[in-house]
Amino acid sequence: MIDLAGRFRALWDELAPVGRDERSGGYLRYALTEPELCLRAWFRDQADRRSMPVQEDGNGNLFAWWGDPAAGDAVLTGSHFDSVPHGGAYDGPLGIVSAFLAVDELRAAGVTPVRPLVVGAFVEEEGARFGVPCLGSRLLTGEIAADRAAVLRDAAGVSFAEALGDRPAGADPALLGRFAAFVELHVEQGRALVEQDAPVAVASAIWPHGRWRFDFHGEGNHAGTTRMADRRDPMLTYAFTVLAANKEARLRDAHATVARVAVEPNATNAIPAKVTGWLDARAAEPATLHGLVEAVRAKAAERAKRDGTELTLTEESATPLVAFDGGLAKRLAALLDAPVLPTGAGHDAGVLAAHLPTAMLFVRNPTGVSHSPAESATDADCAAGVTALAAVLEELACR
Amino acid sequence: MIDLAGRFRALWDELAPVGRDERSGGYLRYALTEPELCLRAWFRDQADRRSMPVQEDGNGNLFAWWGDPAAGDAVLTGSHFDSVPHGGAYDGPLGIVSAFLAVDELRAAGVTPVRPLVVGAFVEEEGARFGVPCLGSRLLTGEIAADRAAVLRDAAGVSFAEALGDRPAGADPALLGRFAAFVELHVEQGRALVEQDAPVAVASAIWPHGRWRFDFHGEGNHAGTTRMADRRDPMLTYAFTVLAANKEARLRDAHATVARVAVEPNATNAIPAKVTGWLDARAAEPATLHGLVEAVRAKAAERAKRDGTELTLTEESATPLVAFDGGLAKRLAALLDAPVLPTGAGHDAGVLAAHLPTAMLFVRNPTGVSHSPAESATDADCAAGVTALAAVLEELACR
Repeated sequence: MIDLAGRFRALWDELAPVGRDERSGGYLRYALTEPELCLRAWFRDQADRRSMPVQEDGNGNLFAWWGDPAAGDAVLTGSHFDSVPHGGAYDGPLGIVSAFLAVDELRAAGVTPVRPLVVGAFVEEEGARFGVPCLGSRLLTGEIAADRAAVLRDAAGVSFAEALGDRPAGADPALLGRFAAFVELHVEQGRALVEQDAPVAVASAIWPHGRWRFDFHGEGNHAGTTRMADRRDPMLTYAFTVLAANKEARLRDAHATVARVAVEPNATNAIPAKVTGWLDARAAEPATLHGLVEAVRAKAAERAKRDGTELTLTEESATPLVAFDGGLAKRLAALLDAPVLPTGAGHDAGVLAAHLPTAMLFVRNPTGVSHSPAESATDADCAAGVTALAAVLEELACR
Repeated sequence: MIDLAGRFRALWDELAPVGRDERSGGYLRYALTEPELCLRAWFRDQADRRSMPVQEDGNGNLFAWWGDPAAGDAVLTGSHFDSVPHGGAYDGPLGIVSAFLAVDELRAAGVTPVRPLVVGAFVEEEGARFGVPCLGSRLLTGEIAADRAAVLRDAAGVSFAEALGDRPAGADPALLGRFAAFVELHVEQGRALVEQDAPVAVASAIWPHGRWRFDFHGEGNHAGTTRMADRRDPMLTYAFTVLAANKEARLRDAHATVARVAVEPNATNAIPAKVTGWLDARAAEPATLHGLVEAVRAKAAERAKRDGTELTLTEESATPLVAFDGGLAKRLAALLDAPVLPTGAGHDAGVLAAHLPTAMLFVRNPTGVSHSPAESATDADCAAGVTALAAVLEELACR
């Protein structure tokens, strides 16, 4: 008999080629594009093989049921298929593959759920296509209105409603009400488990985080002929702000990143008229996050004066602290003898946590790298993740 | 009788609507696209009204002859019609409009050239469509091979040969040999004439200048979950380099600009794997320019060590110092009682200067702004430019 790590590898290899970019080694699995539709077809096939009827809600989310969908008190597990541009293989799909393998583990052990057990795949978790992360779970829970989601457009101008083939249904309290708990297994996006020498952890919280757009307005001019003293160059204010954000985050044990920039006109010999930078900021406490963003804003504004530029700051999104169900986290950590960790990243579990008891499991990532082809997990650790998830599902659905 | 400023305005207003973007107020007059073709038709009409037969060389350049093209020793004046994206109205067209009006001035004064007088319009001076600035003058002089120019492509994939309707002819020593001098009138691209309170200047030189590509390689990672200490973020090295370039240029009375950037993947929540910045650097002396670029490189490399990133530096283009004919500049400055100024920008005159005695006249620009809709010149100063150009043409072609 092939061991669990071998069975993980066999199933994992089925997904490996789908949406892979040969040049980068990363994945281009945008929601409702061909590679992700291929993975959704694979989901239906895997559910079918396990005699788990698949329900697609009106928002693009898939649910495969072991047990009577009408029974209520169901335990939901799963994650998402979509990736960021050139993302890693594990972020999302690991939670779905592990869920199906956990079902196999329970069945092989002769365990039968007393409550329905559901494997789910949420649509557009990364927000890489339509710009709103956790779009599927936000729709299901009513955190985004169907009307607003319908008209979100991708870079080619295709709307979410067009990609979905229909207007999204929006909030579905009847469906949501059937779930008593959600457990999302996810590859770790840092190196805490490497340092703690453990394969699996339980999540405590998601740091409050958000995105702030810094628009720096200057004066377009000729790069060759304009004297340095006559310039109002917004690229200088942008550059200063990038370094200030880094410094202010380090001072606070927080995270700040400026990873996206847009320049008008972005020509080698034209001093820009405008530079826009997006600040991604996260911290353990809301007050720390607020202080961080305020400090970056103040430094940027001060530098803008010196550069003769103008700053406008827009909060594009802000996600408050998500504390996962404390009792549930404690119970699962004890059950698994696993450490408990916070994370800086948003997840569908963070959205659902406001509506039902929710937990997350993290599987060790040797590189600590995420949203990149360098993201990884050993087959042995993935098997440990499946074993842990099976134990959690047995605890929650089978007793 | 309408005065010269009024006659300038009347002719200028004919061009004003062509290729104007209503939103930005700037011009989209790319070489051999509809707006520029419209201006070329206008050129032929203006030449026709003045009984100046138009010759199109095999490279897309237009020449309107007053006098016998076979006579030799001709005096060429003119500029270009094409613009940078959303460029100003004056950069290029002012030199052509002024040339036709200078012909009118000479004729009104009853002056007859003893050598042919030629009004020219060079193609693709900005390089905004096919990527190589001064393409028309480089082809005429053989500084770029016809084969290489033929296959340059615009953003839509159209080749220069396709746009031209034929393979370019390349070097034309017979035509070039007929010109004894070239004088290009151009709007000033800085504020020196504002400060010197003079409407017109004579050019001394074009600063040596070039473009250097800085590729900063880091490690793509998740912006939310990666600890600051674990990052290898190339945006930090880029930002530091932008500020260093500015500082080093100021220390040397030189110009340095980083106005163009490319980020992989350029997503808000993904620490970039790579950031590329283009340095545009210019200085009065080659040694100063070399020292400037070397200082920026050294600072970038030092910072890269600190950030855990890697730098590769590529010289994409380098244009040596162009000193215009010193005797000619002195003679024209005395004739016009005008100041003599260097410039940081390349021009067709810079290309032709290696092949025949060449001079440039600059007309005051109140904003000092260039390559932008804010570029400007008063009608009175433009009239002063026409008067100066007519005096120069009389001096060179009519005595």
